[in-house]
Amino acid sequence: MAIHLDYTNMLAANVPGGGISEAAWDDAETAFAAARRTLEAQRAAGALGFLDVAEGHASLAELRQFADGAGQAFNDIVVLGIGGSALGTIALRTALAAPRWNELSDDARDFFPRLHVLDNVDPTTIAPLLDRLELGSTLFIVISKSGSTAETMAQYLIVRAKLEEALEDGFQRHLVFITDPEKGALRAIARAERIVSLDVPPNVGGRFSVLSPVGLLPAALIGIDVHALVDGAADMARRCERATLAENPAGVYATLQWLADTQLGCGIHVLMPYSDPLRDLGDWFVQLWAESLGKLRDGTTPTGPTPMGALGATDQHSKVQLFMEGPRNKTVTFVAVKELPRDLEIPRLHGDIPELAYLGGHHLGELLDIERRATAGALARRGRPNMTITLDRVDAWHVGGLIMLLEMATIYAGALYGINPLDQPGVELGKQFTYAMLGRADAERARQEWEQLPKPDPRRVI
Amino acid sequence: MAIHLDYTNMLAANVPGGGISEAAWDDAETAFAAARRTLEAQRAAGALGFLDVAEGHASLAELRQFADGAGQAFNDIVVLGIGGSALGTIALRTALAAPRWNELSDDARDFFPRLHVLDNVDPTTIAPLLDRLELGSTLFIVISKSGSTAETMAQYLIVRAKLEEALEDGFQRHLVFITDPEKGALRAIARAERIVSLDVPPNVGGRFSVLSPVGLLPAALIGIDVHALVDGAADMARRCERATLAENPAGVYATLQWLADTQLGCGIHVLMPYSDPLRDLGDWFVQLWAESLGKLRDGTTPTGPTPMGALGATDQHSKVQLFMEGPRNKTVTFVAVKELPRDLEIPRLHGDIPELAYLGGHHLGELLDIERRATAGALARRGRPNMTITLDRVDAWHVGGLIMLLEMATIYAGALYGINPLDQPGVELGKQFTYAMLGRADAERARQEWEQLPKPDPRRVI
Repeated sequence: MAIHLDYTNMLAANVPGGGISEAAWDDAETAFAAARRTLEAQRAAGALGFLDVAEGHASLAELRQFADGAGQAFNDIVVLGIGGSALGTIALRTALAAPRWNELSDDARDFFPRLHVLDNVDPTTIAPLLDRLELGSTLFIVISKSGSTAETMAQYLIVRAKLEEALEDGFQRHLVFITDPEKGALRAIARAERIVSLDVPPNVGGRFSVLSPVGLLPAALIGIDVHALVDGAADMARRCERATLAENPAGVYATLQWLADTQLGCGIHVLMPYSDPLRDLGDWFVQLWAESLGKLRDGTTPTGPTPMGALGATDQHSKVQLFMEGPRNKTVTFVAVKELPRDLEIPRLHGDIPELAYLGGHHLGELLDIERRATAGALARRGRPNMTITLDRVDAWHVGGLIMLLEMATIYAGALYGINPLDQPGVELGKQFTYAMLGRADAERARQEWEQLPKPDPRRVI
Repeated sequence: MAIHLDYTNMLAANVPGGGISEAAWDDAETAFAAARRTLEAQRAAGALGFLDVAEGHASLAELRQFADGAGQAFNDIVVLGIGGSALGTIALRTALAAPRWNELSDDARDFFPRLHVLDNVDPTTIAPLLDRLELGSTLFIVISKSGSTAETMAQYLIVRAKLEEALEDGFQRHLVFITDPEKGALRAIARAERIVSLDVPPNVGGRFSVLSPVGLLPAALIGIDVHALVDGAADMARRCERATLAENPAGVYATLQWLADTQLGCGIHVLMPYSDPLRDLGDWFVQLWAESLGKLRDGTTPTGPTPMGALGATDQHSKVQLFMEGPRNKTVTFVAVKELPRDLEIPRLHGDIPELAYLGGHHLGELLDIERRATAGALARRGRPNMTITLDRVDAWHVGGLIMLLEMATIYAGALYGINPLDQPGVELGKQFTYAMLGRADAERARQEWEQLPKPDPRRVI
């Protein structure tokens, strides 16, 4: 069990015209040391609840117990949640459940339930799903830390009315809330109506919550080994606390990305696993990195990198042309997987056709790995910095570790960029405009601001 | 039936400190006129086969006929294809088939087949799918314009061996090739073994091929109205040929994006539909825009924008913080949908809880649309340029039109950026390295170059 980060191709000696200089890398020790002090201070102040993952083992047992019961009672689990309440769960399902989980028969799923995630409010997809579900064997998990997320609350109201109508009494048994332990509308409803509820610890922000009940309950319900997830994360957390930069994977990752952005202009940070199971990890990472680091520094200076997901080998046929020849504004982090649970040999057919013959006798897993190495080498050769995170396997332990690596890197990067990685003030204005248009009583000021915005200019509509 | 582009929020008057000046926009007429001449010259030279979409009506009838037969004979369709052979098909399935198509019962699919797209070579996902399929009722569509794409050929060899083994004779009936009409390995095999095959016209590049048999055959097989797709595209093609910039949607889109990049430094171009059915259109657009425009200009200067997909309202909880407060290097193009096939009313429950009460009586579709307008307004208010493409509905006609708008915009943008949007020379080096590692006889030179690349430096591996 191991996770390694190879950053050879981030340094100028190996990336002609494009990497970070030895001198800059040596100097970065100081900046990292300061970032580490910031992290320690935030932790001491109790702001980094996601680091306490290992201490959650006691509550894990409780969660597993609930999941074991519910997993048998329900055929369909539906998560109502958006952003940090959805992206981690989707990534875990794709990474750690059997592929195409919801398409499988009960038998192929080992009688674990299907898992649907409603991460939007488009009725075009929600209405047909609600029609199709047998409500009597469906559990809805409503996830909102604040207990008032508009999209999730709208879904909840619709689902609740349907449950009440279809099931008459006992509908509470089909609802679980995951929310703040004390505050917010969901908590109040849970108390008043005895709806089962789990806590999002107050010091765990949405985008850092995948290893809290937010991600762990859905994971446990479909049979994912949540203990191993948490163990892998805890192991990585220890590595990522180290004071020596060169021994600290999250520190190295964050410091390299920050240097690449601020010194080389490489502010687009691509995460590119060569692994179908890690296909949805990119979307989770994009939220983590974008919402944490895209901030006004000192309240005035737009700051932060732009994360981007990619998938190998697939995106060699989509994005790699741009990575190779487009502006020198990107770093690419590959994720490699050493051992696959199964492989397929490419048979020696059409031996007389050279465009096919060379493939025979190789394995698909080998092809995938060779393509990754070829792409990394080609990028380096063309002066494009890149690094590679290698997992021994895609299993719960390694995925937990990778998640923790990127979460801690986010905190270090926040300190390096000089911004607060834990808030998201930029989304407030849009929320207020939404409240204004929906007629919420307390949004009068936003309504006035909204009405002063320019209207569509008929000369500019085609 | 209508598609409109509102670019009010791209212009400086409406985007404090962030938009394109009136003067720059007026000046752009000349640049656009030159770009249009380039497109006309490319078309006259026969390089833009994707524009001939309307003339394909005759072959459409043939394609529909084949699809009608095959649709009845097979329960599962599997596309073997990557990049331009996969992304369009995935986008069409998500946009125009019933949601979660492959999860539906035969009855709910109206007895049309399931549609799987194998767009990678990871055995972790391919092996279980092949195990699960009943090969006797499965049709494999092998798509490669060149007839030699390594990933697709590897899949084909595996599938062919499985078919031969499982079905003894008649396995050809379970294969369709879509490839160049004359050249390449797949065409040669099709001829020798009488395998049904359809043409990718030689002048239609992979990323422009969704409205050729590449995308239309899979679409027809699951009951999508391919005539309407093509009609919508043809209608848009006519609008996008107009000489007057202000009347040409593709011209306006391309010219604005190019100005935003080259004059404002907004080189990250986000496409953000507020529509679940358009959820996968972003990946298709990303390939189109990235692989077409990310190029060395004059063989030396790295050039081109970086496209990015997003989904509303979902990504308000992921990327919008960065769009609002991160570096001023982005434009956002929203896609709005006027009419939804169904809507859901949010019931008036919990009237005593203000965080929920304001939602009651509104509809989900209304909420989705209000959130889009709020986000666009908030971005403009903060000096972030954005525009909005509005479709009356998500149906085949409108999706065809949107595809053509973006394809023609790509050609115009290529001319404005001064690069060739039809090639992809940057991926060649990685391919050669792959061939070298797989031991292909003709890759000796690449092998030598590969061996000279720096190896992982143990000091830089953690």
